[in-house]
Amino acid sequence: MSSQFGKLFKISLYGESHGDSVGCIIDGLPSDIVVDFGLIRNRLDQRKPDSSGFTTSRDETDEYEILSGVYKGKTTGTPMSVRFVNKDHRSSDYLESDQVFRPGHADYTGYMKYSGANDPRGGGHFSGRLTAPIVFAGAIAEQILQLKGIEVISQLLSIGTLQGKSLEDIDEATVGLINQLKYAIHQDYSEAFLDEIRKTGERGDSIGGVVETVVTGVKAGIGEPFFDSLESTLAHGLFSIPGVKGVSFGAGFGLSRMNGSVANDRFLKNSKGAVITATNRSGGINGGISNGMPIKFDCAIKPTPSIAMPQETLDFSISETSLFKIKGRHDPCIALRAVHVVRAITAIAICDQIFICRGIGGNV
Amino acid sequence: MSSQFGKLFKISLYGESHGDSVGCIIDGLPSDIVVDFGLIRNRLDQRKPDSSGFTTSRDETDEYEILSGVYKGKTTGTPMSVRFVNKDHRSSDYLESDQVFRPGHADYTGYMKYSGANDPRGGGHFSGRLTAPIVFAGAIAEQILQLKGIEVISQLLSIGTLQGKSLEDIDEATVGLINQLKYAIHQDYSEAFLDEIRKTGERGDSIGGVVETVVTGVKAGIGEPFFDSLESTLAHGLFSIPGVKGVSFGAGFGLSRMNGSVANDRFLKNSKGAVITATNRSGGINGGISNGMPIKFDCAIKPTPSIAMPQETLDFSISETSLFKIKGRHDPCIALRAVHVVRAITAIAICDQIFICRGIGGNV
Amino acid sequence: MSSQFGKLFKISLYGESHGDSVGCIIDGLPSDIVVDFGLIRNRLDQRKPDSSGFTTSRDETDEYEILSGVYKGKTTGTPMSVRFVNKDHRSSDYLESDQVFRPGHADYTGYMKYSGANDPRGGGHFSGRLTAPIVFAGAIAEQILQLKGIEVISQLLSIGTLQGKSLEDIDEATVGLINQLKYAIHQDYSEAFLDEIRKTGERGDSIGGVVETVVTGVKAGIGEPFFDSLESTLAHGLFSIPGVKGVSFGAGFGLSRMNGSVANDRFLKNSKGAVITATNRSGGINGGISNGMPIKFDCAIKPTPSIAMPQETLDFSISETSLFKIKGRHDPCIALRAVHVVRAITAIAICDQIFICRGIGGNV
Amino acid sequence: MSSQFGKLFKISLYGESHGDSVGCIIDGLPSDIVVDFGLIRNRLDQRKPDSSGFTTSRDETDEYEILSGVYKGKTTGTPMSVRFVNKDHRSSDYLESDQVFRPGHADYTGYMKYSGANDPRGGGHFSGRLTAPIVFAGAIAEQILQLKGIEVISQLLSIGTLQGKSLEDIDEATVGLINQLKYAIHQDYSEAFLDEIRKTGERGDSIGGVVETVVTGVKAGIGEPFFDSLESTLAHGLFSIPGVKGVSFGAGFGLSRMNGSVANDRFLKNSKGAVITATNRSGGINGGISNGMPIKFDCAIKPTPSIAMPQETLDFSISETSLFKIKGRHDPCIALRAVHVVRAITAIAICDQIFICRGIGGNV
Repeated sequence: MSSQFGKLFKISLYGESHGDSVGCIIDGLPSDIVVDFGLIRNRLDQRKPDSSGFTTSRDETDEYEILSGVYKGKTTGTPMSVRFVNKDHRSSDYLESDQVFRPGHADYTGYMKYSGANDPRGGGHFSGRLTAPIVFAGAIAEQILQLKGIEVISQLLSIGTLQGKSLEDIDEATVGLINQLKYAIHQDYSEAFLDEIRKTGERGDSIGGVVETVVTGVKAGIGEPFFDSLESTLAHGLFSIPGVKGVSFGAGFGLSRMNGSVANDRFLKNSKGAVITATNRSGGINGGISNGMPIKFDCAIKPTPSIAMPQETLDFSISETSLFKIKGRHDPCIALRAVHVVRAITAIAICDQIFICRGIGGNV
Repeated sequence: MSSQFGKLFKISLYGESHGDSVGCIIDGLPSDIVVDFGLIRNRLDQRKPDSSGFTTSRDETDEYEILSGVYKGKTTGTPMSVRFVNKDHRSSDYLESDQVFRPGHADYTGYMKYSGANDPRGGGHFSGRLTAPIVFAGAIAEQILQLKGIEVISQLLSIGTLQGKSLEDIDEATVGLINQLKYAIHQDYSEAFLDEIRKTGERGDSIGGVVETVVTGVKAGIGEPFFDSLESTLAHGLFSIPGVKGVSFGAGFGLSRMNGSVANDRFLKNSKGAVITATNRSGGINGGISNGMPIKFDCAIKPTPSIAMPQETLDFSISETSLFKIKGRHDPCIALRAVHVVRAITAIAICDQIFICRGIGGNV
Repeated sequence: MSSQFGKLFKISLYGESHGDSVGCIIDGLPSDIVVDFGLIRNRLDQRKPDSSGFTTSRDETDEYEILSGVYKGKTTGTPMSVRFVNKDHRSSDYLESDQVFRPGHADYTGYMKYSGANDPRGGGHFSGRLTAPIVFAGAIAEQILQLKGIEVISQLLSIGTLQGKSLEDIDEATVGLINQLKYAIHQDYSEAFLDEIRKTGERGDSIGGVVETVVTGVKAGIGEPFFDSLESTLAHGLFSIPGVKGVSFGAGFGLSRMNGSVANDRFLKNSKGAVITATNRSGGINGGISNGMPIKFDCAIKPTPSIAMPQETLDFSISETSLFKIKGRHDPCIALRAVHVVRAITAIAICDQIFICRGIGGNV
Repeated sequence: MSSQFGKLFKISLYGESHGDSVGCIIDGLPSDIVVDFGLIRNRLDQRKPDSSGFTTSRDETDEYEILSGVYKGKTTGTPMSVRFVNKDHRSSDYLESDQVFRPGHADYTGYMKYSGANDPRGGGHFSGRLTAPIVFAGAIAEQILQLKGIEVISQLLSIGTLQGKSLEDIDEATVGLINQLKYAIHQDYSEAFLDEIRKTGERGDSIGGVVETVVTGVKAGIGEPFFDSLESTLAHGLFSIPGVKGVSFGAGFGLSRMNGSVANDRFLKNSKGAVITATNRSGGINGGISNGMPIKFDCAIKPTPSIAMPQETLDFSISETSLFKIKGRHDPCIALRAVHVVRAITAIAICDQIFICRGIGGNV
C-alpha cells in the first residue's frame, strides 16, 4: 500500500467502506489561509450520491470533521486531518457466504495481495467512498490556486458513444456554470447524457464516459522533467482514481494519427503581447513543462463494474464458478461522480508542482 | 528538475544532447547478478538511429562505459553508473542567431523555466538522446525480471491511421520475434507502416503512432494503491518519455464507450487450475493491482515535431514571428524508436513494484 | 511541515495539543498480522503521564480508536488510522494576553514559520501529546519485529550527572524487566534517579537525561548506504522526538577521544560458530550496515523547557521583555517519558529498513 | 543501497575506490547561477590528501569533469553530473588471498549484504574517496547559500583528549581564516593538534576527533517538523559520512546534564531590534525549526580504522582468525578531512530546507 501522494503538498489517505470512517491528512499546507468552508461544502455536495437514480442510494452524509490544522478559521501550517464518519458502519447486510470475486472489482486482487485478510465489505479500501476525502483535499488546493488566479474545470465530455463539446470550444460563462453543477455536463448535452445513463441503469447495466479537464491561469514553467514532467505528475494522481483507465493530454491519441505539420502548435503573440500558441494540441505542455496555454487532458472512465445483471464468476474458495447478482443499487455511470474527483486530484497535483518552484512559504 | 524515478529500484538521469555525455545512476540493484552484456547491446542497437532514413542520421555511437557497480561481470549491489559519450560534442553548427521557439519542442518552456540559461543546442536536456541510458537501465531491469519469468514486449501497433494487430492476438513465436526487431512491427504490417513513414518523411512531414506493451508472467498482487496503483506507477514513468501524450490500460478509451456487461472480465479457472479472466479489458489490473493476466497498455506517440517543412514561430527575443526551416534530417516517426524506451521504462517500473513486495534482497 | 516518516513502513502524523485529537496513519503494513492489543496498551501506559509528580498531571486518557486497517483483529494490509481524542479540548484556560515566547519552546519559531497562524495552545503541534500515536505505531512495528526475533529495549541511562549502567552490562533477565517498566530505570539506580527528579521538580526546575537503546536479533546486512545508512535512518527519526538534541552510536563521542587500536572491534567466531565482535564500540554498525551485534545508541534529552521558576522573555508582539511564570505542573524530566518514544521510533525505523531488504510482503 | 539525498536539492552518488571513477548527479539546481570554479577548487583542495603524513599518500588528482548542467559558465537548471576519474584504477596491488574482514571497516557488512559480490578493493563503495563528489556538491550549495548571506563554517574542535575553542567563542576574522584552511584548526591549537596526530601516526595508531559546525545567516523558520525537523535533516546527511558516530546540537549531550533553568535560551532584542537569544544552548533550533541564531552542532569522528599495528580478525572464508597488518599509509586522523565533508553535507541540507520554503525557482 502506498496511501501518500505529493512531494510538498502531500496527502495521506485511509479508510474502508464499512469501517469507522474514511479520511486523510493534508501535509505541506501554507499557514494563514482563510478556509473557504462554502467551497468545501459545494465540492462535497457535487460528489455526493443522491436519490436521483443516477448515483447509489447509499445514505452517505458526507459530513466531515476537521481534526487538526485549522485554528480560528485559518490554516495553521501544520497537518490538516479530516474524517468522514461512515454511517451505520457497524451493521452490515454483508454475508460472507455470498462472497464471489465480482468481475471488474478489486475483490480478487485484494484477496491475493492481502492473503485474504483485507476487509471485503463494500469494496473495503477500494470503495469509491475513499474519494470523499480526496475531494475535500482538492477543495483546499483549489483555494490556494485561486489566490494565484488558477482555475480547474472538469466536465463529462462523453457518455458511451454520445459525444459533447470540448471545454475549449465553450464560452467562459458556460464553463463557469458547468463548474458548479452536480452533473457537470454542458446544457446542450445534459438531457441526452442523463437519459442514456437512466436507460442503461434501467436495464441493469452501466456505462463509461470521458472526463475532460482544463486548467487555466498556469504560467509557463511548471513541471519537473525528466521524470516529474507535468504529464507524469498529473497522470500519477489521475490513475489512482478508481475507474480511470486512460489519460491523454491535448489531442491525445488523436496525435498518434496526425502529421507533425498538423500537430505542431505555432507560437505567436496575442494582442496583449503575451506568448500563446495558435492551436493547443499539446494540451498546454511542451517537454513536460507548462507553456502558459490552458492545460487540457481527458480521462477515460470505465463503466461501473457493479451491474444488476447476473454474472458468472469464481467464489472466494477459488473452486467454483457461480452465477450471482449484485444486490442493491449502484451508480450506472461512475463518470458522473468521477468528474469531481478528477478536478480534486488535478488541483492537488498542480498545487504541488507550483510549490516545487515557489516553495510552501513561511517567513524565511 | 527531477531526474529521479523509482522507490527502491531508482534511476537518476543526466545529460545534454551537445554536452559531454548522457548517462544515469541505477540505485537499488540486487548484488550478484551476472550482467548480460549481450542483452544490453541488443536493446541499445534496437533503439539506435541508423542510416535507413527512418531515424535521424546523427552519428551516435551508443558506446557506453560502466563507471561503477559491476565487478567481475556481476552487479555489486552498489550504484551502477553508466555514461554515453557524445561524439564531437564540442563542435557545433548551432548558430544562436537562428534561435526560434520550434513548435512542438521544449524550446520555449525550457527558456521560460530556466530563464534562458539552459543549453538549447540539439534540444539540450530535452533531447531524445537522453533515452539511451534509460534503455540501458531497462535492459538491467529486464535481466532481473527474466529471473522471475517476466517478459516485457512492446510493438508499434499503429502508424497514423494504419492499424496493426494487438500483441494479445498474435501467437507467441511471432511475439518473440517482434521483441528482437529494430522496427518492432508485425511482419504483416511492416511494409505498409515503413512505407507510410518513408513517404511522410519524403514530403518533409512526420507522423505519430501507438506503441502497445504487454507484460507476461507477473503474478497477482503487485501495485500499491491508493496512490501507487500499478497504472499510476507505469503512467508516471511512461509520460516522462518525450512524445508520449496518452496512456491507456486494457481496452483504454474504448472502455468509456462500453457497457459494464461488456467491459467486465469474468473470472474462471483454466485447464491447469489457474485463475484467469475470460477477457482482458482491464489490462491485467483491477483496483490498481495486477490480477495475473498479461498487463497490457497503449501509449500514444505524437509525430516528431522536427519537420522539414517551413514553419512560422516566435524567435528567442519573443518579438518577431519568422518563417524558419529545421535543418538536418530527423526521424519522421519517433514512435519507431520510442517502442524500445517504453519497454525499458516498463521493465524499470515493474521491477520497482516487485521489490516493494519482495525487497531488494541481501542476506538479511 | 513534513509529517511523514519511512519509505515502505510509513507513518503520517497529525494533531494539536488542544485540538480535537492527535493521531496517525500507518501505511505499508503487511496483511494478516494478529494485532496484539495488550502490547499496545502496555506501551501506551508506559508513556502515559500519571499523578506521581514525575510527569504532568494532564488528564490524558490515552484511549484510542482504530479507524481503519484492522478487520477481525488482524491487519488488512491497508492503511491503519488511529485517533486519540483530546479530553476537554474545547475548553481552555489559555489566555492570549499571557502569550510570551517561552524559552526553549517552539513558540517563537512556530510563530515565525507560520506567520502567527499556528495554534499556540499547549504547544499546539509541538506538544509532547503528539508522541502518543508514535508510541502506538511503534507497538505495531514491535509486533512485526518480534516475529523476526528482534527486540528493542530503551532505558534511562543517566539523569543530570547521575550515571547508571549500560544495557550491554546488564543481565538478560533484568533487561527484560526494565523493558516493561513505566520508569525504565535499572533497580540499582531507580531510587537515586527518581529522587533527583523529584527534588528538581520541587524547586521548580527540570533536568535532562540520556536514553540508551539496544536492538537485539538484527542480522548482518540492513542499512542502505550511502545516504540511508542505518545511523542516518535511525537518527532522522530520533531527532524528530521533541527534546532529543544528541544521538550517538556505540561508544559515540567517546570514539572521538580514542585511538584506533582501542576503538576497532575485532571479528571472531563465538562458540556456536557465529561471527561476532570482541567489543561493540561501533554499536553494531559498520559502514552504515548492521553487523549482527546488538545495535546500540544513546540519545541526549534536554531538560523540560517548562519550569515553574520565573523567566524573562519576549512577548508575541516582539516588543517587550517580561518576567513570566509557566502555570500548571509539568514533567520535571521529559527523558522519563521520552524513553518509550525512542523505542517506538527505533522499532519503526528498523522495520522499514528490513522491508527495504525483504519487502512488505504479499502473495507475489 | 540508497545513494540519493535531498527532497528538492538532490544528489545521487556513485563509485568505487578502484573503479573507473566516483561522482554524482546534482538535481534540483536553480538555473542561471554563475559557477564559482575557484570555490570548487578551493574546497576540493582542502579535502585532498597530501604528502604531509597527516593524510594518505594516495595520488588522488581530484581533477573533475562536469558532464552536464553547466553552459557558458552558468547552471542550466538541468542535472549537473560530475566525475572524478580514479588514477591507475585498473592496476591493483590488491591480492584476494590477503582478504580479511578489517576491524572497524565495512568489509564484513558489505560482504554479508552483497553476498560477497561487492568490490572489496580499497573499501570499494565505502571508500573515503566517495566524499570528493560530496565536497563538489557542497561547494555548489555554498554558492547558492552565499547569495542569501548564509555561511557554513566547520572546524576541528578536538583531537583525542585535546580540546580547542568553540567557533562561537572565536572572533569573526579568525573564523573566516579557519574556513579557508586545509587543516581547519584554530591557530592557538594547530601545533598541538597536528603534533598529536603526527605522533599517533608514527606509532602506527590513529585518533578520533570532534568537528564543530556553525551556520550563520539563516533566518528563523526553516525546518519541517514533525519528521523533517532541521536536526533530523542535518543528522540524516551527517551520519552518512564515513566515520561519523555522533551528532549533537547546541550544548548537545551537555544538555542531558543540565537543569532547565540553565539550558533555556532567553529571548530578547538586540540593539538593532532583532530577536536573539541570550545564550545558544539549543544550537539555533527550537522545535525542529531555525530560530535565527547561528545553527551549531558537533560531529564525533571515530579514529581511522586502518592502522599499521598488527590486528587479529577473521578472513573472508569466515573460518580462521589471523593476525594481519594493513599495508600502505593511511590518515592517522580522518577528522582532519571529514571537516570539509561535514561542511559540504551541511550546505546541501540547508539549501534543500530553504528550497522547501522558497522553491527551486524558475519563472513561474
